[in-house]
Amino acid sequence: MLENIDLGKTISEEDFDSVNPELEARLARCQRAARELKIPVIILFDGWDAAGKGNAINALAQVLDPRGFKVRSFVRSTAVERMWPWMWRYWQVLPAAGGWAIFDRSWYDRALFDKVGNGKGASPPRAVEDIRDIEHHLVESGAVLIKFWLHIDKKEQRKRFRRLKENESTAWKVTPDSRRQNRHYEEWLAATDAMLEATSTATTPCTVVEATERRYVRFKVLETIVEAVEREIKRRRTIPALLCRPMPEPDAETLARKTLLDQVDLNRKLEAAEYRDRLGRLQARLFELEHELYVARVPAVIIYEGWDAGGKGGNIRRLTRALDPRGYEVVPVGPPTEEEKSRPYLWRFWRAVPKAGHIAIFDRSWYGRVLVERVEGYCSDHDWQRAYGEINEFERQLADFGAVIVKFWLHIDRAEQLRRFEARQGNPEKQWKITEEDWRNREKWDLYRVALDDMIAQTSTARAPWTIIEANDKLHARIKALQTVADSLGQRLRRQ
Amino acid sequence: MLENIDLGKTISEEDFDSVNPELEARLARCQRAARELKIPVIILFDGWDAAGKGNAINALAQVLDPRGFKVRSFVRSTAVERMWPWMWRYWQVLPAAGGWAIFDRSWYDRALFDKVGNGKGASPPRAVEDIRDIEHHLVESGAVLIKFWLHIDKKEQRKRFRRLKENESTAWKVTPDSRRQNRHYEEWLAATDAMLEATSTATTPCTVVEATERRYVRFKVLETIVEAVEREIKRRRTIPALLCRPMPEPDAETLARKTLLDQVDLNRKLEAAEYRDRLGRLQARLFELEHELYVARVPAVIIYEGWDAGGKGGNIRRLTRALDPRGYEVVPVGPPTEEEKSRPYLWRFWRAVPKAGHIAIFDRSWYGRVLVERVEGYCSDHDWQRAYGEINEFERQLADFGAVIVKFWLHIDRAEQLRRFEARQGNPEKQWKITEEDWRNREKWDLYRVALDDMIAQTSTARAPWTIIEANDKLHARIKALQTVADSLGQRLRRQ
Repeated sequence: MLENIDLGKTISEEDFDSVNPELEARLARCQRAARELKIPVIILFDGWDAAGKGNAINALAQVLDPRGFKVRSFVRSTAVERMWPWMWRYWQVLPAAGGWAIFDRSWYDRALFDKVGNGKGASPPRAVEDIRDIEHHLVESGAVLIKFWLHIDKKEQRKRFRRLKENESTAWKVTPDSRRQNRHYEEWLAATDAMLEATSTATTPCTVVEATERRYVRFKVLETIVEAVEREIKRRRTIPALLCRPMPEPDAETLARKTLLDQVDLNRKLEAAEYRDRLGRLQARLFELEHELYVARVPAVIIYEGWDAGGKGGNIRRLTRALDPRGYEVVPVGPPTEEEKSRPYLWRFWRAVPKAGHIAIFDRSWYGRVLVERVEGYCSDHDWQRAYGEINEFERQLADFGAVIVKFWLHIDRAEQLRRFEARQGNPEKQWKITEEDWRNREKWDLYRVALDDMIAQTSTARAPWTIIEANDKLHARIKALQTVADSLGQRLRRQ
Repeated sequence: MLENIDLGKTISEEDFDSVNPELEARLARCQRAARELKIPVIILFDGWDAAGKGNAINALAQVLDPRGFKVRSFVRSTAVERMWPWMWRYWQVLPAAGGWAIFDRSWYDRALFDKVGNGKGASPPRAVEDIRDIEHHLVESGAVLIKFWLHIDKKEQRKRFRRLKENESTAWKVTPDSRRQNRHYEEWLAATDAMLEATSTATTPCTVVEATERRYVRFKVLETIVEAVEREIKRRRTIPALLCRPMPEPDAETLARKTLLDQVDLNRKLEAAEYRDRLGRLQARLFELEHELYVARVPAVIIYEGWDAGGKGGNIRRLTRALDPRGYEVVPVGPPTEEEKSRPYLWRFWRAVPKAGHIAIFDRSWYGRVLVERVEGYCSDHDWQRAYGEINEFERQLADFGAVIVKFWLHIDRAEQLRRFEARQGNPEKQWKITEEDWRNREKWDLYRVALDDMIAQTSTARAPWTIIEANDKLHARIKALQTVADSLGQRLRRQ
């Protein structure tokens, strides 16, 4: 992508002055329309040290309404940030619908620095996939993503460093890392070219800006942004929004099909004495494992999904009783808040990713997208269909970071669910647990059955397998869950 | 508070077993009722090293529903955290309404460590006031705040350190800081006693727990929590909620009273040529000052308040055009989101506090509490009345951290406002700026006049003075605002 760039490109002052006012007016209209249509705009500025990122951002900021954008500067990652997957810090600052985020250095800078800069060794193992995943997720979620690479050649960079060093107030900008970049310019060039190439797709193109002349940079950056945002605005105004509709009744054939869950032996039981004995031993083991995780800085993600009244709460409690509360967090997942709805779907889960050495226990999870949201039509067909892939990618990134991932489906049959619902309704201490919605969900058992079967087929992976828990007998279910957690953690720790 | 503590207190196993099941059942009911009544519960565990905070938190966590609480562990502050006022990290993690937060070490630990521990010198200058302020704000906002100090004597502490060191898996818990605490036990005792004394009030009492026997700790902690939460639940269920009502029409006498704002000379004007000249020079100066702030690590808070159509947007834009966008953030303040409403009022502003060396520009601010919320009755009389004090305390904490605080009121008269409203309505590019609400607010001019007069009288302080900007002439208004910012920053930097 960088081989045939004409770095001599310029724009004359007259030409600039004749097009610029109109460009600025269009940009202001873009910002208002994006706010109105709730389109988030994300602009990445990467490029060679001293290529003029700061100037380009300044120029842009002067035209935009300052109440509608945020500049996010990413310096090299801190020790605290390295306690999370490398994409974590970018996820934190994604703009809400209608907001603009300007990234002063982005994931490209981090990935390249780790690859060819001084960060060698600390690099994310699959940076290109991770970048493709987040960019794809952003664009699919309706964001306009604009990526700039500000390009200058080796000689120009050296000249700029010299000029910066002449002035006391700018000399600090030339760091040992910058000088090293110039010395290894060719190596950087090759790596950059490969990375931009590998991450440029039709929907996530990168714009290489010939950055020798400052005025030209300003012109090209503004023009690129205006055209990209106008295109999306036009698309939104002409193409109807995707339909959200409840899941249709499955046909007879689909209903009759045996699923994996139909083969589960729900008669499995445990005697109380054996339960007490095993529970005590497992809890003691888990307490030790939690400490070992902490020392080894291994994070763990434990997901509980299951039928209403499947026993998630009681099961989680048996697990947490084994643990030191300073090492785990239970994350209850309900309907998204307004703030969460105005971000890409996975945003709220990225915010809850555990840090190295800690355990996050999800009481329901991102799988809501392909269960309740699909069944009730809270999202479009396109949204839940693409979610399988997004979820697999998300879990892959967690696994790459070293996380243990355990996913439970607490399975009961319809008759057992009815028994539990009725028992709850009859018990004044437990009535609060049962709502109208639970009864409504029960009516949709067959729809969930189909959605579940798809979910398990699409998202069982070696790094994040589903464990089906036979949960008609609560004692069996608890022991199986705790045993699975203990085995998974133990296995992972032995690999350290 | 610590002199007459009987550290020999114990509870027999039989007594414990006879009261504990009932205590646990009450605690579970407390948690459900608190969720239902939307009462946040904040529990602080501080105490001597090795006094058993971890055990107490463990015991508590085993009884609570793990989906309803979070444990927040505070280790000694990191370099990143020290870029914000010391209370900042506690504000970030306040629970939402109905949630429980358990602090494993709190602001007491930090303040004491900085005072008598190894953190000497880095200490917050007015820790006691800061603690009293946050605790008062929490309780006034409807939280139950429970504070524990786990107490053991010097000999017992030494004994525990010895025992911890005997075991390989616990030896790491005895740090050089712990040993130093034991050596300087008496100094710590005196400082702790003074601090607990100074921060214990009728509504924010501290419970000293005689922590020699683990079982007794468990009993006393549970009992204290249950009683405190039950008390608040009962209060909520019996005492009617405070009334929220729109501000009543002021009486004739109040209306006739000349206010400070009536004396403002709205005829002040600036010629275009002088404006351009001064603007250019001021912007150049501000660009330098921003850099100097950054180098000196001084944060700045600039607040824009003013009448609708007072010219805030254009004024802010003239300021931000002078600045490098990587050094400032504009924070537009609108109606609070659901998440913000479920926290103490100042929570969302604490989240937006700029870090050292950065500038936050607030487009509307915390003063909404005593303006729109008071006038429209979005909060109770008690809420806005106490807000003056809370705001002054908040700004004092910012000032203690070294922040420059500049507060603008953009003042126009009613006739000028009408002219601007009509001009906006007549201009297709500006129609979006004017809403029904603006017209409704205009009807309440007299109410705002009274609220404003109170606001300025109650919240003008030497460290955070109000600057009234005569804004009928936009050019004058912009220059005065930029000049004020430049003077304030310059003055502060000369003090460095």
